[in-house]
Amino acid sequence: MACLSRRFLLPLLALGGSAMSARSDEGMWLLNDPPRDHLKAKYGFDLADQWLARATGAAVRLNNGGSGGFVSPDGLLVTNHHVAADAVQKLSTADRDLMRDGFYAPTRDAEPKCPDLELNVLRSTEDVTARVNASVKPDMKPADAAAARRAVMSAIEKESLEKTGLRSDVVTLYNGGLYHLYRYKKYTDVRLVFAPEAAIGGFGGDVDNYEYPRFGLDVAFLRAYEDGKPAKTPDYFPWSKTGPADGELVFVVGHPGATSRLDTLAKLKHRRDVSLPYNLYRIRTIEAALAQYSERGPEERRRGSRDLHAAGNRRKAFAGQHQGLLDPRIIEQKRGAEAELAKLAGAAVDSRASVFDRIADAQTRLATFEREYSLLELQHAFTSELFGVARHLVRMADELPKANADRLREYRESNLESLRFQLFSPAPIYPDLERAKLTASLAFAAEVLGGEHPTVAVLLAGKGPAARADELVAGCKLFDVGERKRLADDGKSAVDSSTDAMVLLARSVDAEARRLRKRYEDEVEEPERQAYGEIAKLRFAAFGRSVAPDATFTLRLAFGVVKGYDVGGERLPFHTTLGGAFGRAAVMGNRDPFELPKRWVDRKDRLDLSTPFNFTATSDTINGNSGSPVVNRAGELVGVNFDRNRHGLVRNFVYTDEQARHISVHSRAVLEALRKLYDAPALADELAK
Amino acid sequence: MACLSRRFLLPLLALGGSAMSARSDEGMWLLNDPPRDHLKAKYGFDLADQWLARATGAAVRLNNGGSGGFVSPDGLLVTNHHVAADAVQKLSTADRDLMRDGFYAPTRDAEPKCPDLELNVLRSTEDVTARVNASVKPDMKPADAAAARRAVMSAIEKESLEKTGLRSDVVTLYNGGLYHLYRYKKYTDVRLVFAPEAAIGGFGGDVDNYEYPRFGLDVAFLRAYEDGKPAKTPDYFPWSKTGPADGELVFVVGHPGATSRLDTLAKLKHRRDVSLPYNLYRIRTIEAALAQYSERGPEERRRGSRDLHAAGNRRKAFAGQHQGLLDPRIIEQKRGAEAELAKLAGAAVDSRASVFDRIADAQTRLATFEREYSLLELQHAFTSELFGVARHLVRMADELPKANADRLREYRESNLESLRFQLFSPAPIYPDLERAKLTASLAFAAEVLGGEHPTVAVLLAGKGPAARADELVAGCKLFDVGERKRLADDGKSAVDSSTDAMVLLARSVDAEARRLRKRYEDEVEEPERQAYGEIAKLRFAAFGRSVAPDATFTLRLAFGVVKGYDVGGERLPFHTTLGGAFGRAAVMGNRDPFELPKRWVDRKDRLDLSTPFNFTATSDTINGNSGSPVVNRAGELVGVNFDRNRHGLVRNFVYTDEQARHISVHSRAVLEALRKLYDAPALADELAK
Repeated sequence: MACLSRRFLLPLLALGGSAMSARSDEGMWLLNDPPRDHLKAKYGFDLADQWLARATGAAVRLNNGGSGGFVSPDGLLVTNHHVAADAVQKLSTADRDLMRDGFYAPTRDAEPKCPDLELNVLRSTEDVTARVNASVKPDMKPADAAAARRAVMSAIEKESLEKTGLRSDVVTLYNGGLYHLYRYKKYTDVRLVFAPEAAIGGFGGDVDNYEYPRFGLDVAFLRAYEDGKPAKTPDYFPWSKTGPADGELVFVVGHPGATSRLDTLAKLKHRRDVSLPYNLYRIRTIEAALAQYSERGPEERRRGSRDLHAAGNRRKAFAGQHQGLLDPRIIEQKRGAEAELAKLAGAAVDSRASVFDRIADAQTRLATFEREYSLLELQHAFTSELFGVARHLVRMADELPKANADRLREYRESNLESLRFQLFSPAPIYPDLERAKLTASLAFAAEVLGGEHPTVAVLLAGKGPAARADELVAGCKLFDVGERKRLADDGKSAVDSSTDAMVLLARSVDAEARRLRKRYEDEVEEPERQAYGEIAKLRFAAFGRSVAPDATFTLRLAFGVVKGYDVGGERLPFHTTLGGAFGRAAVMGNRDPFELPKRWVDRKDRLDLSTPFNFTATSDTINGNSGSPVVNRAGELVGVNFDRNRHGLVRNFVYTDEQARHISVHSRAVLEALRKLYDAPALADELAK
Repeated sequence: MACLSRRFLLPLLALGGSAMSARSDEGMWLLNDPPRDHLKAKYGFDLADQWLARATGAAVRLNNGGSGGFVSPDGLLVTNHHVAADAVQKLSTADRDLMRDGFYAPTRDAEPKCPDLELNVLRSTEDVTARVNASVKPDMKPADAAAARRAVMSAIEKESLEKTGLRSDVVTLYNGGLYHLYRYKKYTDVRLVFAPEAAIGGFGGDVDNYEYPRFGLDVAFLRAYEDGKPAKTPDYFPWSKTGPADGELVFVVGHPGATSRLDTLAKLKHRRDVSLPYNLYRIRTIEAALAQYSERGPEERRRGSRDLHAAGNRRKAFAGQHQGLLDPRIIEQKRGAEAELAKLAGAAVDSRASVFDRIADAQTRLATFEREYSLLELQHAFTSELFGVARHLVRMADELPKANADRLREYRESNLESLRFQLFSPAPIYPDLERAKLTASLAFAAEVLGGEHPTVAVLLAGKGPAARADELVAGCKLFDVGERKRLADDGKSAVDSSTDAMVLLARSVDAEARRLRKRYEDEVEEPERQAYGEIAKLRFAAFGRSVAPDATFTLRLAFGVVKGYDVGGERLPFHTTLGGAFGRAAVMGNRDPFELPKRWVDRKDRLDLSTPFNFTATSDTINGNSGSPVVNRAGELVGVNFDRNRHGLVRNFVYTDEQARHISVHSRAVLEALRKLYDAPALADELAK
């Protein structure tokens, strides 16, 4: 799965300088700054303004970390099943398990509203680099520089919101090289139209995740509503009835989450030796706890399945990144690129070493408090929906009375509506699942910090982790959205006098968490941002805009060709077939996660088994691109991206197209399944119109 | 599961001094020093010499870390299915999966030989404390003291072996308070008689592990052979046809692996904050890798199942211990006991603090190199059968030419026969499973030490972990027992000139691994042993032998009463029933790990569903006690111990009988199943004779 998990947010580096020659298709490009010349020279393709405008209007960002695209003028959008799964899960109950059984609304009346899904569609962008940079004076200390930049960004966003009514975010590109203001149209009434059974949406489970050949119907359909009616979406991707041909040029229009291609060697080594080991340690701990919870019974399996799959996906991605950084070839590539940049820096900045040393120094500092920071501020000690709610309530009480410019970023005026939408979600929170996750994460904090650490004493409050988790969940009323609203509305006095166990916990760790966050921002983030900003300037001077910025979960255009690849001398074809799914299931004993839904088995005879099912292409994608429309020259949707193969896992750090591929559901497979398996002719007709 | 995993080996502490009053049944007692007075006073039971002699002769230790007991005069023994599983797995192939399908040999001709299972039966013990202690002079440095002690122990063992022909081990009791020479009769021709399907042997899997109520037929029957014929075993436990009554006094005769009840507070905190977090980190890493491997397909599931279950069991045990040590009540108990001992020490040793400070200092030193030591010397960087073989070959080449007294302990003369028996085992080693485990453990080493660590450079040899694992397994010929024998027979010149990839790896890390081991022995083990020896003397002086030594995987006698317990105000009955298994399976959706074998479903009607299945008792057990006979006053076997409940997980550190219980298979359930489900009347008759 390639959906976005919260990850490091940093930029992209030319490999050895010549890597961005005409031959490489590397790059997740800004749609307002696309590589027209490259496309023209290599593929003879003229990227027309109209093509770009439609792609921009049809591309959708889902706030839970995925991508999608409109596919009809009536607000219908496609994304991955595993992206929609969060909503599908929240719409499910013990009696009506839409994850297990799938869902189809034959009429619009039957489309249920997702509790907390927000869609963003990009309306405009504006370069605000000069204004942001002007706010930071050269003689400012890092903490002051960070505060000044935060203030101007919040001000720009607030002004834009007030002027346009659109969601407005200042996006940091090239990790400080450019600042762009993005304005989005926002949809918060999003309804479920179709989801297949999880067994075919995620066919092959953890085993086949990041592998190929694949056989997944990893698609779902949603519909955006406005004023209680299907939204009018004149920009959409017409659904291709044929899909792509071998070798065809395709585009991926989506929201890649985060890449780290501009990382200096010191930063990469810090990731390899500090951040990734810690994160692997953590995610395996949570995964083990979720696996145990899920095995307790059928209802627990249902409740835990989303979290468990997400943990397994993350574990596999982190492990792939870690193994990639242990590959000496990748480190050597990076070392070469860095030497080249160092040469440029030698000519352009005071001290040749300074810009790299400053980043290395930031890592040395970070290593001294990264675990505490992650546990307390990133909430790794509290894997809990309820704690997340409590933290927001506690912080809103402190932050909202402040001036907009002085608030923590997530509480800036322009973000409050989206934040409240999440905070007051009526989606169910399960006490037993909360207890299992909290027990594991509290014990994890004690493992990491040691039982004598003062923070651990606060976390455990004189109890063992399990007893403490029981107490916290039993003493928490935040399951109730009304209670959340009451505390949010009544503000600081209500929060300060609350005896809610989770609110008390959030309050008791807040000072220390804020202190760690401030250290992180002042001692790591700001020095890195300034240093990377300088590197970006060097690169612009040398290469112009021939290098795309690193991914930032904002709209990007990638491209490549539809293509199989060789493994051990054998050619893997560029697409699999529907028939192949039955073969794979049989080889794997028709057993979870290779058990095809009953509908597939019963109706196998109806299917054209030679229909292409999943296909591979070379385009540059990363987590967050899940659900991205894959589009041909004509702007038709030929596939829905849903994963990379294992060779693509190193794309966080380097682009390669030797064996690295992204994997998509073929547009024909979707039509075939909708018509012949799912009795969904109305939906198929809406696509095929 | 309560089988022995390689664990710390340390002793037992009176809780608050009065805990060993007549009311507590704490203790894993030496059979030559049992608590006769306590049994007489509390239970009115006279522990006769004859009873003890028979129990000693009938109790069996299995070299893979479990216990068992003879149950007929013809060498028949019972143990747990999960203890025999190692042998059952090694006797299985892709076509004939005895783990999945179970096994019964209706005649003795049909009993297959286990490839590498060794049984030990205790024949005699002898106190050699004076001779061992005499070898260590007061002015010796720790390294010299350790060498002198090692030398005298090896000499005692060799003399005994030469004199008696019996396996001879010097056992350290009270962690240095006493040294006893144990002589064992050894059986290496052990054959499989009966094993149920793993689905009922381990019913409930990881979910129900360390839980109660339970429904497991966790038994298997083996037969010891001598000279190609069933061994004569006049000492055996007659099989009880009725089983135990509620409240009845029972004894557990077995080989508890390791407890840590004498640990000082500093040692316990080191476990809590350093050793257990590291071991949890590691075991979750290996478990995740094994789970991924096992999901690749049915044959991989078969190959990986033993390792995966062992990892899950260990993860659950470690987590229980860690959570126990985070419970302030346990730490306070220990603090109180330590204060009391410190008072005694104040009167008896030079400096009141010294004995505890010396142990604390050892922990401080250990923390600086424990991870390197564990990775290299304990082979955590190489989770691989082949590496284990290669290491022995490399070390035998260096050690065997030395004088017996100077060798590493495992290569002493008296241990060589057992070592060779393991080393030349014809049990299959699977290349793909080796690759999966090696990849995970090499990557784990890089996570722990960092990519720049010189040892990691040696381990990975310029490749990523997966590529390196492929290379090591592809370049290894040690799958072949003949090749192992050739290298072992030809000694150092053959090993030094070997180009086997795994031998080369073992050689390349050996100097560093030995250096770390020597540090551990000189800086941690020896100072601890001397300090704990002093503490033991203090305790003997104050309490006499009223405190049992900590467990050391040697024969012990525990006792308690058959008893249910209360959870949340509700009483859990002391036994479950066969019928209950069907109920539990239904509630859990009849799905792995709650899917009953077909035989059980088909023949349900034949069963008396009210037959007691599993039962609980208060006796003091720990890992290694798996398969221990549970015996009544008459010396009859009324059950086979197989697990503790979750409340018993803290028994590594403290004894409690409020809710802590061990869990056993009821003797009646075994007879019922053999006769009505498994068509095994001959076996049932042999038991019931």
